[in-house]
Amino acid sequence: MSESLSGEQVVDLDDAHVFHSWSAQANRNPIAIEKAAGSYFWDYDGKRYLDFSSQLVNLNLGHQHPTMVEAIKRQAEILCTVAPPIANAARSELARRISEVAPAALNKVFFTNGGAEANENAVRLARLHTGRQKVMAAYRSYHGATAGAIALTGDPRRWPNEPGVGSTVRYWGPYPYRSAFHSDSPEQETERALQHLRDLIAFEGPQTIAAIVLETVVGTNGILVPTDGYLAGVRELCNEHGIVMIADEVMSGFGRCGEWFAVDHWGVEPDLITFAKGINSGYVPLGGVVISDEIAATFATRPFPGGLTYSGHPLACATGIASMDIFVEENVLDGVRSLATDVFAPGLAELADKHPSVGEVRGLGAFWALELVKDKQTREPLVPYNASGADAAPMGAFAKACKDGGLFPFVHFNRTHVVPPCTITPAEAKEGLAILDEALSTADTFCS
Amino acid sequence: MSESLSGEQVVDLDDAHVFHSWSAQANRNPIAIEKAAGSYFWDYDGKRYLDFSSQLVNLNLGHQHPTMVEAIKRQAEILCTVAPPIANAARSELARRISEVAPAALNKVFFTNGGAEANENAVRLARLHTGRQKVMAAYRSYHGATAGAIALTGDPRRWPNEPGVGSTVRYWGPYPYRSAFHSDSPEQETERALQHLRDLIAFEGPQTIAAIVLETVVGTNGILVPTDGYLAGVRELCNEHGIVMIADEVMSGFGRCGEWFAVDHWGVEPDLITFAKGINSGYVPLGGVVISDEIAATFATRPFPGGLTYSGHPLACATGIASMDIFVEENVLDGVRSLATDVFAPGLAELADKHPSVGEVRGLGAFWALELVKDKQTREPLVPYNASGADAAPMGAFAKACKDGGLFPFVHFNRTHVVPPCTITPAEAKEGLAILDEALSTADTFCS
Repeated sequence: MSESLSGEQVVDLDDAHVFHSWSAQANRNPIAIEKAAGSYFWDYDGKRYLDFSSQLVNLNLGHQHPTMVEAIKRQAEILCTVAPPIANAARSELARRISEVAPAALNKVFFTNGGAEANENAVRLARLHTGRQKVMAAYRSYHGATAGAIALTGDPRRWPNEPGVGSTVRYWGPYPYRSAFHSDSPEQETERALQHLRDLIAFEGPQTIAAIVLETVVGTNGILVPTDGYLAGVRELCNEHGIVMIADEVMSGFGRCGEWFAVDHWGVEPDLITFAKGINSGYVPLGGVVISDEIAATFATRPFPGGLTYSGHPLACATGIASMDIFVEENVLDGVRSLATDVFAPGLAELADKHPSVGEVRGLGAFWALELVKDKQTREPLVPYNASGADAAPMGAFAKACKDGGLFPFVHFNRTHVVPPCTITPAEAKEGLAILDEALSTADTFCS
Repeated sequence: MSESLSGEQVVDLDDAHVFHSWSAQANRNPIAIEKAAGSYFWDYDGKRYLDFSSQLVNLNLGHQHPTMVEAIKRQAEILCTVAPPIANAARSELARRISEVAPAALNKVFFTNGGAEANENAVRLARLHTGRQKVMAAYRSYHGATAGAIALTGDPRRWPNEPGVGSTVRYWGPYPYRSAFHSDSPEQETERALQHLRDLIAFEGPQTIAAIVLETVVGTNGILVPTDGYLAGVRELCNEHGIVMIADEVMSGFGRCGEWFAVDHWGVEPDLITFAKGINSGYVPLGGVVISDEIAATFATRPFPGGLTYSGHPLACATGIASMDIFVEENVLDGVRSLATDVFAPGLAELADKHPSVGEVRGLGAFWALELVKDKQTREPLVPYNASGADAAPMGAFAKACKDGGLFPFVHFNRTHVVPPCTITPAEAKEGLAILDEALSTADTFCS
């Protein structure tokens, strides 16, 4: 069995037989994981890593939460899987729980295996509900890698997959630090970003646009927190033109922003919310779409033309219920808000003050970015957009310094994100910031 | 917790909060499942169903196999999930096992959550490997419901999703009972189906075609077993023109056809094989692509532009290892072959002889179809293609008779499929055939 493999064997077999995503297959030199608990994991040499990435920002309850492990074991004994048309208790109950915490008008859940399929089905719902084809999606976004989801994606991962699905209209979202609108303040950024959307809608033809999709807080592409008033403005534009508002909360939902759903932070109600990752920390693959009553009604008597074998998988759903229980019992949302106020906001501001390489710190909840620059005045990124090879060396050196110091970082382009489990303790968080502090000294050496 | 819900509550919550695939949401009246074991499941009234559908033809080891349940519990305690770039023992070992049973030149595995994503990534691999865009896919096929997968699909499920991804060229596969080529024999069907493909390739331009995708044995669209020589002929055409051959074995692989992979039955080696369902009976969502050395080499130094958070999910992979162990320990492949020879082939032939509604029986392994007709001479289907509502009533009456008799059938258009767990006992299989015998008398009443 796999438990008897040595670390070396695990890596050798990985090299020989596993084909890897988003990477060249040769010379990977992966870390092999032997065990994990809470905010930490260990390699086969016993080296411990503080997980400041929550793996792929999915492990909101940390590694191997005992209540989650118990929930898997219990449901495995009851019922692992069943076809989607057959009702089962775990699916029914999780759908009720999600509806309960979702905005008031969103009361039905379509379950998928992950975020890409969630976004695929959200767009399908929007297109069929409106009878329109075009979807507006943002630059600086990631929505998944299936054909429909990669077509929404506004980062370089879509390039090798083009030409793909048509009918995507791309827009720029608010991002005061590098404004597409030459704005001087967050207020102006909101106003101009909405004017930009309004202009695009007018010139594309409002009656041709099915949906505007956005990450409530943009994740991998920079923890771009929407400026105040922006989401409400998008909601108004959607109302005005009968456009479906889709909030992709695959990364930002379920505690990451200190709320069940990130939209709660601004009190805005989208028509569709997509989720995955934090719903059950990825202990069993699970995602989905929360659907407004109005859109659900469109499919009361007209069949919805989408599906998958594991929609509403009982084992996955049972872990979603357990996770939502833990959020309540351990008061996870309050914990995240306290971490933000007491540790991350002040601690990261201190790092920004101290290090010439830190251009900006931004975020909320357990969802933060440090944008690294060559020069604080010019804001020139420490590495170019989509850098690879030698161009990316400064970020590689920074990441290596983190790992050497015992911290597993999330690094993307010229940024490092601070996205630990939502259950990280203040002491662990501070330990991580101290390692970041060291590693940023390495980044500083690349400043001009 | 969900365990305390009554059957009525499960259905009520399902109605209120679960959005369902492939169906109108109103008036569903689903069965609710309380427990399951082996070839059976039970509703909350204690009514027992013999599962002749393996849920969605995924439950190759039956419900709640104790060794599978143990494997989930053990891996849950070790490690539930980890990011794809970090090596782990369960993923490494399962990739090795799959490579071991796959055709000789296929030695790398890209893991996904299910079949749709597997087909999406197979097409991505083929397009980037060849530098070509077009993909040839069959009428009478199903390849999944994400944008890329539904574009491959050749059944009505793609209609409401069109216009979708372009660049699909559709062809007809061999189907002697309703030949697209007016052939008189299986040999002629092979010859003409290959000539049809050859003509399409010539007129589309061989240098524009990335892949030919086919279900090795067509599943939901009719258990269409390829005529002898067809798959070898497709392989030759692909070799001749540098086209990637993709075998979709999401339904036909891992025991369903009495082999690890259905292509083994004909000794043909595709370049890419996609799998899901039977790899672990769907106990945890899992799918993937087995990749030839030649295609893998294309991505040795060039990054592969695709991925997903749960690629190579440890909990899912551990159940794959357990499933492959069970296949060996319980001699499942031999069992399936014996079932085919001793029970299904003779038993279904007997039903065909007896019932005027049975036009043809075909299949292999634990993968059989009864094609129901109004008239054996004219072969007019018992219900029209893609029938719904009143038009579909005869098949509805047949399905109801099955369920009343305690058998959960797989019904599609004018066919019922016999696709029980691969581990069904001969006695259970015979019990199922007896219920089918009764239900076919209902179907007979609709014959002309």
